[in-house]
Amino acid sequence: MKLGRVIGSIWSTCKNPRLVGRRMLIVTPISSTGQPTGAEVIALDTMDAGSGDVVMYATASEAALPFKPGLTPTDATIVGIVERVDRSESTWHTA
Amino acid sequence: MKLGRVIGSIWSTCKNPRLVGRRMLIVTPISSTGQPTGAEVIALDTMDAGSGDVVMYATASEAALPFKPGLTPTDATIVGIVERVDRSESTWHTA
Amino acid sequence: MKLGRVIGSIWSTCKNPRLVGRRMLIVTPISSTGQPTGAEVIALDTMDAGSGDVVMYATASEAALPFKPGLTPTDATIVGIVERVDRSESTWHTA
Amino acid sequence: MKLGRVIGSIWSTCKNPRLVGRRMLIVTPISSTGQPTGAEVIALDTMDAGSGDVVMYATASEAALPFKPGLTPTDATIVGIVERVDRSESTWHTA
Amino acid sequence: MKLGRVIGSIWSTCKNPRLVGRRMLIVTPISSTGQPTGAEVIALDTMDAGSGDVVMYATASEAALPFKPGLTPTDATIVGIVERVDRSESTWHTA
Repeated sequence: MKLGRVIGSIWSTCKNPRLVGRRMLIVTPISSTGQPTGAEVIALDTMDAGSGDVVMYATASEAALPFKPGLTPTDATIVGIVERVDRSESTWHTA
Repeated sequence: MKLGRVIGSIWSTCKNPRLVGRRMLIVTPISSTGQPTGAEVIALDTMDAGSGDVVMYATASEAALPFKPGLTPTDATIVGIVERVDRSESTWHTA
Repeated sequence: MKLGRVIGSIWSTCKNPRLVGRRMLIVTPISSTGQPTGAEVIALDTMDAGSGDVVMYATASEAALPFKPGLTPTDATIVGIVERVDRSESTWHTA
Repeated sequence: MKLGRVIGSIWSTCKNPRLVGRRMLIVTPISSTGQPTGAEVIALDTMDAGSGDVVMYATASEAALPFKPGLTPTDATIVGIVERVDRSESTWHTA
Repeated sequence: MKLGRVIGSIWSTCKNPRLVGRRMLIVTPISSTGQPTGAEVIALDTMDAGSGDVVMYATASEAALPFKPGLTPTDATIVGIVERVDRSESTWHTA
């Protein structure tokens, strides 16, 4: 999984039927110290995450697993909301 | 998924039989503020997207899901047309 | 899929049995204006492509789909030869 | 697989049910000489790895294989603890 | 597939049971002219490759195909030893 921060959301009425009713959030990947590390992804939300939350998200085939046996065409899915990041030199309480 | 903008299309008569009759669009990945973020992809269109449209597209295995049970060899598929991008500091009406 | 140009080929006699008899081409990814955009891949050829051809190739799991139900261990496969690239500002006849 | 070093861990109570009870470690990818090479990942631990350990981890679909037939939505999993890295010019005893 | 050069090997006694007895080699990706192009991977060897060999390796889901129906958690596998690289302007005999 990757660590990321929710920074917004996407609206689309014309979309794949299996995406209807799913929240689509904009997530910026971040390092374990909170620094942005790459290009944003659009992730399906399964955790009721909100703007500003630190989350972990799965990518590639595994992103579709939470929706099985449905064939939801997603390649990024939020699978957890992160409360704390422990590193040997520091602890980060994200909320 | 990724956010992208349609900038053109590809013509090919000699191609995999499962791609026959599919529109193949050139998509530039963009950030949630509309800036290009990486190398173009060729995405199959399932949404009747047109040049200039802001879209979201799925990559990797998930790109093939809209065509199941067919075995379409695609690794990028447009799964929605984006109307609005909401960020905490701004709203972008894409059309 | 990605756009690429064929620049050569690979010879290997000691290889996975499922790759025997397959042409293995060196492909440089290019943008829709023909500029190289990244590291080369070795793609299986299913289209009788030749050196200099502009092609589209599929990556990841989807690269194996043209060979199903066989389990060919390929992660890049040429799925079409490109004749024309249309962009709003220009048309590129590749051949 | 990739070579990496464990540098910390993630705490999350609100997460996908299939991740409950799994340790989630922060791993920095490193080269065979121990230099960091890219963005951190959050990997599931199946090897009882600890902070500072040099590990190898699998990504993409293969990361989920150790948990089959369960459908654990992971795209990075530690599959071994590395004791020694042999290169033609040097040997690195990691522990 | 990608072109790479074997530069060493990894020793690990604590590892996923399906990796036991497999050689794990360090491979540096290279271009068709032999230049390094990116971060090293740890690839399972199915071809009895040795240090210094130029090889082609498959990544992602396809890396696991040579081991099917076993569920070996590998995301990089050597599938051939390369003898010759032909480019329009040059031929490289790798051995």
